[in-house]
Amino acid sequence: MTSGLASIQWVPLERRSRIPGVVRIIDQTRLPGELVYLDLTDVSAVAEAIVSLRIRGAPLLGIAAAYAVVLAAQEALRDQQPIGQSVRDAAETLRRTRPTAVNLFVGLNRLVEAAMRTRSSGPAAVKELLAVAENFHESDRRACAAIGRHGADLIQPGARILTYCNTGILATGGEGTALAAVYEAHRRHGDIRVFACETRPLWQGARLTAWELRQHDIPVTVLCDNAAASLLARGEVQCVMVGADRIAANGDTANKVGTFPLALAAAAHEIPFYVLAPTTTFDPEIPAGAQIPIEHRSPTEVVRPFGHDIAPEGVDVYSPAFDITPAKYISALVTEKGVIYPPFETNIPRLLRPKSRSPSEEKK
Amino acid sequence: MTSGLASIQWVPLERRSRIPGVVRIIDQTRLPGELVYLDLTDVSAVAEAIVSLRIRGAPLLGIAAAYAVVLAAQEALRDQQPIGQSVRDAAETLRRTRPTAVNLFVGLNRLVEAAMRTRSSGPAAVKELLAVAENFHESDRRACAAIGRHGADLIQPGARILTYCNTGILATGGEGTALAAVYEAHRRHGDIRVFACETRPLWQGARLTAWELRQHDIPVTVLCDNAAASLLARGEVQCVMVGADRIAANGDTANKVGTFPLALAAAAHEIPFYVLAPTTTFDPEIPAGAQIPIEHRSPTEVVRPFGHDIAPEGVDVYSPAFDITPAKYISALVTEKGVIYPPFETNIPRLLRPKSRSPSEEKK
Repeated sequence: MTSGLASIQWVPLERRSRIPGVVRIIDQTRLPGELVYLDLTDVSAVAEAIVSLRIRGAPLLGIAAAYAVVLAAQEALRDQQPIGQSVRDAAETLRRTRPTAVNLFVGLNRLVEAAMRTRSSGPAAVKELLAVAENFHESDRRACAAIGRHGADLIQPGARILTYCNTGILATGGEGTALAAVYEAHRRHGDIRVFACETRPLWQGARLTAWELRQHDIPVTVLCDNAAASLLARGEVQCVMVGADRIAANGDTANKVGTFPLALAAAAHEIPFYVLAPTTTFDPEIPAGAQIPIEHRSPTEVVRPFGHDIAPEGVDVYSPAFDITPAKYISALVTEKGVIYPPFETNIPRLLRPKSRSPSEEKK
Repeated sequence: MTSGLASIQWVPLERRSRIPGVVRIIDQTRLPGELVYLDLTDVSAVAEAIVSLRIRGAPLLGIAAAYAVVLAAQEALRDQQPIGQSVRDAAETLRRTRPTAVNLFVGLNRLVEAAMRTRSSGPAAVKELLAVAENFHESDRRACAAIGRHGADLIQPGARILTYCNTGILATGGEGTALAAVYEAHRRHGDIRVFACETRPLWQGARLTAWELRQHDIPVTVLCDNAAASLLARGEVQCVMVGADRIAANGDTANKVGTFPLALAAAAHEIPFYVLAPTTTFDPEIPAGAQIPIEHRSPTEVVRPFGHDIAPEGVDVYSPAFDITPAKYISALVTEKGVIYPPFETNIPRLLRPKSRSPSEEKK
């Protein structure tokens, strides 16, 4: 990464501290005005940070959940409680924070399994869990880099890329998903411009994506979400690149609400629409998008921006945090293992199949 | 109208006033928090009110422009200047305010022609122009009522209607265009719900449409513009009804930016998409949408809501005020003269043709 920004990191404390380490995050609710780091010392602080969107982004939520389990374990050690029970309690708390991004559950499961499996106890057990969490973080960082390379292969020099919400450093353990492709294309070609939809109601596109890109001197144009279709109609964009919170077995993709209308507009103008996500975002248990649980957020986020009432009292509010883009509108899914083209039903399992299968199996 | 709300009215002053009357408007920038009326006494005040969106809505802009010409005439009279020149100067000023809504030019032309044609002078000339402006206002009021009736014929009892921006009392000289159909359907059936897209960047949907409907006890749900596609995908909406700022000869329609993506989403889910507008919104001189001039607004409106920076310094901003919905996505155009179905190229001229043609011509 060129900027040295890190959305999340495990920070070991000095030896005489009561706990061995903390989770340091960027408080994303303070951007773009201020770059503020927060040190989270226990599970409830991580849960609060997730619910209030101080940290967000599907891959980042997985990493945060993994580190939160380590916090639970070191708390248990300090309080002389059984680690196993603390880990299970922590997982229970974290599972209830946000329902849509599957990565959170993947991160949790990875750590809970490690806690159940370990034969170590005491400080050695905590150390072992930390190694598992750091490994999970590192594998996301590598996945981001690989997604960036595969994604950048789809970007021509001089391209203008429309993106949505935030899918960069602030959303992952590495350079991002859709934005990793932008960073890589920028390194390869220089001449790249990003159109960042503001992403109502919480403006992650304007606040976070535009901020990240400005940190890296990549030209960025912010627009209201509702202006994207007219931009595509003008022929000013060569491709749309977005992230994902959960991808069903058939390729239907849950992502930040507002992604689906971009896919419709891209299809209407025959502009490629790419979803970039690590394989931890795929949920083969879910056959189609209709079965993906969709979080609904507080009406206040919509109708009281910055404490100003933009609607009269007594109105109802519809505020889903995500929408489903049907697979038929997706040109390709870009993962760390490569690019998946339709038909997704057959090509997703082919790519996700564990490497342990025999070469003859792989060829099928 | 049930509420007695009037978005604009000519208010005669008492005899000893220096001018005979003023234009009274609701300052729409203060809604939904406060209902504030402003009395505009000269052309520059009307121009300022238009540019700063204290008044907006294509039909209302036409009426405001017409009354503004009367203000110019009475000013000229007071200052003992020639009325003809003042009227031409006023028209010049007003033509430069906002380029997209054609109604503004229709209102201006109506008054300028009357001023050129009149043989009266002095107070009689002003009185004559006022009569023309009031007649123009009254014909819009009647057009709204007729649009409401034709539009309500397309609404089933229990319907849920998605709408955009504000197309009601606050946008016209009467009950509105798309919202006139809602008011009429509500009178007929009672059981109606409106989904009002907030309409970034200035929230006319949340601020104005939701406020108007609450004033009339019509249930309303506000949503972010980017959530509309997911709402349509859930099957919760029976039709989309929007207004228009200019309709080209082929039916391509300029309306508030964000209308086009709604049309795409409606088409994808086979939900009827209706454009409701008076015939003053049609521009037969413009062959297709690509030729309609599109106003671009200040970046500040997008990236500094309520004085809060939602994007970092140095970003570019794309902020068109309107987009073009191609005719192929429009199920029907609803005017005061009736409903126009595709093919629009032939059916628009057929309906707009002046009544003076012979009956045999009409049947063609």
